[in-house]
Amino acid sequence: MIRAAIVGATGYTGAELVRLLTRHREVELVGLTSRQYADQPYPNVYPHMSGQVDLACQTQDIDNITDTADVVFLALPHGLSVPWVAECVRKGKKVVDLGADFRLRRAAVYEQWYHVTHEAPELLAEAVYGLPELKREQIQKARIVANPGCYPTASLLSVAPLCGQGLIREDRLIIDAKSGASGAGRNANLALIYGEVNENVKAYNVAKHRHNPEIEQEVAERAGLDPDAMAITFTPHLMPMTRGILATVYADLKEGVRPSAEEVRDLYRQFYAGEPFIHIMDEGVWPQTKWSYGSNHAFIGLTVEARTGRIIITTAIDNLVKGASGQAIQNMNILFGLPETTGIEAAGIYP
Amino acid sequence: MIRAAIVGATGYTGAELVRLLTRHREVELVGLTSRQYADQPYPNVYPHMSGQVDLACQTQDIDNITDTADVVFLALPHGLSVPWVAECVRKGKKVVDLGADFRLRRAAVYEQWYHVTHEAPELLAEAVYGLPELKREQIQKARIVANPGCYPTASLLSVAPLCGQGLIREDRLIIDAKSGASGAGRNANLALIYGEVNENVKAYNVAKHRHNPEIEQEVAERAGLDPDAMAITFTPHLMPMTRGILATVYADLKEGVRPSAEEVRDLYRQFYAGEPFIHIMDEGVWPQTKWSYGSNHAFIGLTVEARTGRIIITTAIDNLVKGASGQAIQNMNILFGLPETTGIEAAGIYP
Amino acid sequence: MIRAAIVGATGYTGAELVRLLTRHREVELVGLTSRQYADQPYPNVYPHMSGQVDLACQTQDIDNITDTADVVFLALPHGLSVPWVAECVRKGKKVVDLGADFRLRRAAVYEQWYHVTHEAPELLAEAVYGLPELKREQIQKARIVANPGCYPTASLLSVAPLCGQGLIREDRLIIDAKSGASGAGRNANLALIYGEVNENVKAYNVAKHRHNPEIEQEVAERAGLDPDAMAITFTPHLMPMTRGILATVYADLKEGVRPSAEEVRDLYRQFYAGEPFIHIMDEGVWPQTKWSYGSNHAFIGLTVEARTGRIIITTAIDNLVKGASGQAIQNMNILFGLPETTGIEAAGIYP
Amino acid sequence: MIRAAIVGATGYTGAELVRLLTRHREVELVGLTSRQYADQPYPNVYPHMSGQVDLACQTQDIDNITDTADVVFLALPHGLSVPWVAECVRKGKKVVDLGADFRLRRAAVYEQWYHVTHEAPELLAEAVYGLPELKREQIQKARIVANPGCYPTASLLSVAPLCGQGLIREDRLIIDAKSGASGAGRNANLALIYGEVNENVKAYNVAKHRHNPEIEQEVAERAGLDPDAMAITFTPHLMPMTRGILATVYADLKEGVRPSAEEVRDLYRQFYAGEPFIHIMDEGVWPQTKWSYGSNHAFIGLTVEARTGRIIITTAIDNLVKGASGQAIQNMNILFGLPETTGIEAAGIYP
Repeated sequence: MIRAAIVGATGYTGAELVRLLTRHREVELVGLTSRQYADQPYPNVYPHMSGQVDLACQTQDIDNITDTADVVFLALPHGLSVPWVAECVRKGKKVVDLGADFRLRRAAVYEQWYHVTHEAPELLAEAVYGLPELKREQIQKARIVANPGCYPTASLLSVAPLCGQGLIREDRLIIDAKSGASGAGRNANLALIYGEVNENVKAYNVAKHRHNPEIEQEVAERAGLDPDAMAITFTPHLMPMTRGILATVYADLKEGVRPSAEEVRDLYRQFYAGEPFIHIMDEGVWPQTKWSYGSNHAFIGLTVEARTGRIIITTAIDNLVKGASGQAIQNMNILFGLPETTGIEAAGIYP
Repeated sequence: MIRAAIVGATGYTGAELVRLLTRHREVELVGLTSRQYADQPYPNVYPHMSGQVDLACQTQDIDNITDTADVVFLALPHGLSVPWVAECVRKGKKVVDLGADFRLRRAAVYEQWYHVTHEAPELLAEAVYGLPELKREQIQKARIVANPGCYPTASLLSVAPLCGQGLIREDRLIIDAKSGASGAGRNANLALIYGEVNENVKAYNVAKHRHNPEIEQEVAERAGLDPDAMAITFTPHLMPMTRGILATVYADLKEGVRPSAEEVRDLYRQFYAGEPFIHIMDEGVWPQTKWSYGSNHAFIGLTVEARTGRIIITTAIDNLVKGASGQAIQNMNILFGLPETTGIEAAGIYP
Repeated sequence: MIRAAIVGATGYTGAELVRLLTRHREVELVGLTSRQYADQPYPNVYPHMSGQVDLACQTQDIDNITDTADVVFLALPHGLSVPWVAECVRKGKKVVDLGADFRLRRAAVYEQWYHVTHEAPELLAEAVYGLPELKREQIQKARIVANPGCYPTASLLSVAPLCGQGLIREDRLIIDAKSGASGAGRNANLALIYGEVNENVKAYNVAKHRHNPEIEQEVAERAGLDPDAMAITFTPHLMPMTRGILATVYADLKEGVRPSAEEVRDLYRQFYAGEPFIHIMDEGVWPQTKWSYGSNHAFIGLTVEARTGRIIITTAIDNLVKGASGQAIQNMNILFGLPETTGIEAAGIYP
Repeated sequence: MIRAAIVGATGYTGAELVRLLTRHREVELVGLTSRQYADQPYPNVYPHMSGQVDLACQTQDIDNITDTADVVFLALPHGLSVPWVAECVRKGKKVVDLGADFRLRRAAVYEQWYHVTHEAPELLAEAVYGLPELKREQIQKARIVANPGCYPTASLLSVAPLCGQGLIREDRLIIDAKSGASGAGRNANLALIYGEVNENVKAYNVAKHRHNPEIEQEVAERAGLDPDAMAITFTPHLMPMTRGILATVYADLKEGVRPSAEEVRDLYRQFYAGEPFIHIMDEGVWPQTKWSYGSNHAFIGLTVEARTGRIIITTAIDNLVKGASGQAIQNMNILFGLPETTGIEAAGIYP
């Protein structure tokens, strides 16, 4: 049994880790930390877990947690992961960071978008960006896995098969993304209360969302482009729903390149052949976020708009599962040599 | 492995059976019928099941289905179950009917509320009302299990511990129930389209809902009362949500009886001791339907309103799981001697 | 022109007053107060009011406001209205208090349910409970109008025609009410964020909601009963919607009284004859909260359940309009001798 | 008084016309047609209109309607408007067609996208595309007003100030639009039922939505481009909400052109100066569809993304009001020389 601890277990991604790990047959949960709910039985905070977990929340004692656990999941606000990661590395424990601190390989880019100094830039080099469908082999050997953001997961799955193929202008992508409100976490924020979110749609953080550089970094790498020459537009929108992300991606075809939709679809099917969580839809079938509700599955639809010379791709995931906690467990499975689907095989809940 | 078939597999309860049974380690799905989608691969109808099930829908061939399967789940509109049940009995197959045809023990009551003639009243006597927490022993020996309606499940779990205890007027209960729209099935009905249901609450079928006699029958039995002397009011309401039922039950205390809330709560805790799916909340904690989302778990809250001499109970379930397909699998587990939680252990999805 | 001021103009009921009063042809808005947003142009707080109002929010200066205005609307948390009301009375200004401080005629009852001392019990005697359909004549002569709570408005409209008619046990009513989340106001409360409210239904404040004594007071008065002998159960539920209340009321018929549904309906039609905001539905038609969305209209459906000896009534209103700000304007119209529908005639928004 | 008739009065756009016109002080409703509900009092179909309108639905008798009315609003499925428009023209009555039949000036384009033959191409030349902010003067003189589609309204308001200014590649726009479900009308369609739409987001009709050529036609005209050389991508998405459209528009700046955000914003403010329904937001403020709920107002936010050389604009409207019925009334006001805001001044309902 793998002994796992969750640091920040009472936010929404933490809770989703608890839900999934309590049913993972190779995992024993040994620690759940929460500053706000320390000493409270976990089901008092989340009654849906009644009878599923009998741990109480504990304070964030780095020593104790990293001693006890084989793998530590960090579900913390950005800027707080460094001491945990450093201690895990020191003790030879595996760590999967669901936050942003280890996703960007260049500290300067991190500091430019997050407006804080990175306190352990020397660790960035060995952190692996944990998108298993793209980096499975690096993850197997990693000590630090930087779990991708929810938006980048949907965005990168959308375009990875096209990158470096000579088909599209990878540097000029436009990504229009739509997310459920749970992506903002469990925070008592006026802009998140029901009356403000229900029956309402808006863009936010336009031209300045922190997931933008993460997308550009990975696309540049796959496409073999200069990361500083990327000009990808990423626009997030808040949806009146709890879970789900739909990324709609617009890719300009290069001059003189005019593949058919079926040629592009075949490219995707080959690229993702054998992937248990990736589903490529037939022409004219467009993914719905609800298909992925509560699951680690991703659904990709696409077409070629010959009239304009663009490929349009939409990808649907559950932001809390494939976009966060499910993917973190997928990474853990890889780190420990388990079948990659262990504990996260289930289909979405529909309707 | 138990070979299971689902008759009516493309409605919402059918789809939920498919979702849960594909992950049930002791079950092999051998048949999925659908009049509307015959010959289509199941994931074409429900893409969230891509990669989870590779059966195609088939026509409703009674002979073939009942030959192939060890247990048949019927998810059909009322009035259509009789030939299936009769054939299962004839061939010695187990049958779990998720419809209404075998829930009422007296054909006359069925005909009064459903306005159709019951075509096999002789089979009613041996059908067992499949609410495991109340009838586990009868279910073990049954051939025909009549799976309870979603509203009666929430209602009966709410009041069973009080029945026959000399505390309340069981015959005068008032049940005000709130259901998500999935309870109306997957039907192209104008009253169910989004613009009519969203941001909207209404009562419907007031004083004439067909789940009313089912509730009265079971309460009368448990309380030792004449079923013809019951005067239980049951009022269903449609909620702007997809899943979930909350039953709010008002029970008048008998003259001179004034238990404390804790005495009543203890009664519930004893009654449901050891039940894996039933959770009794502490004083002041009131169940939320979301806690049960996608799961077979039920949450019960209660208090005694001394000022008025009433007990107020609310119970939350997922109408498609504990209120339908999950409970059907719970019944199957009992019928085949499996641990009762097999395949339906998972917690709800929250948020 | 009536000069009107709104104290607490940036909560949801305040905002609804602003929306409605800016289109009221006999009203000039002269003051909008807000502690949180003082000095900000009102449309900065509520962009939907861009171009509709050019006032800035001001601090809560009692002297200035009560000097400038002919009528003052108070949209404040309970406990804060007394100094405003006292000053209005002193200066001969009309005041409509949308809060709870002047609804209960007996200070002791107020203190029992609100757990604070009432600081001006001497003013309670002259405050009029502002439910126009029941108290139009007293309102005409009032200086202080205590605008009813949202739940009591729906509840009292449901049962007023039955009270004192010898038909029902007015003291034993059960009211099961369902409200949209805007009833909890514009507050950054964790329990109100989207992930907690969406796709979720729960009861709350069971057996202890502060609208309970308000309902009992008014029912007792109309029925000629001792207010201390009332035993009305009132259970509020939170709905996954923004606006709307549906009250479902259960009234036991007295022994030997068995009116037909049409007799009861006629009673309602006579009682509410000529009322512009009250709509009695035909048998079998049950009100939907969406019908009242954004409007001052109330819809009442009812039937007699002969089998159990009960009358069941459901009433739908918009909690922020007929349940708060619209009714406050209706009261203002009465206070100033205007046609009662002025400025609040509009139908609901559907769908 | 203007005598107005609505043909197709029981769909959602028809109902919204009825709601708004019953409160229009210069209009008398003289006819409401409905094939499905002929002879039924209108409030039986839409109870929210109880007491607001006392007409019954009538059959679609062209002669009678065009004799009686001064202006006819057509709210019909595409392909059905021609005989109505022809008869209005013959009798000298004004007609506002909310359908698609007269929006495209070239019959060949209509036939290419709608797959039906246009039966009166000779009338296309004189139909005016009724977007008042862009074509007010032509509308004043028109006999036939082709009311724009909901998506084109939001899209064109987003980009009109930029067209022909030498700033952007008008022919290469990308429009990612999000619409509430009411845009699909009041139809008993399985894909529209609550369980399929709630908590769900998807793209649909990608690269082939019929509003695409309408957008290209008007952008080409304003930009002085060849309509056959346009390559605008338009992608509609279905939102889990009833009302509202948000259009997110991506415009590539031309080579060497790099205006500041404030320069572009000033351009918008000048372009829309004096427009009562258009609101340009400050930098960093992004429109929310809820601001426009039930109203004719449009909210536009924008920024310049210098990093990528793009302008990003989002515009929020209510699809049933500014996107359909409110705009139709705005057009009627212009046709009859009334102040343009008459009857549609009201702010949106928030929250």
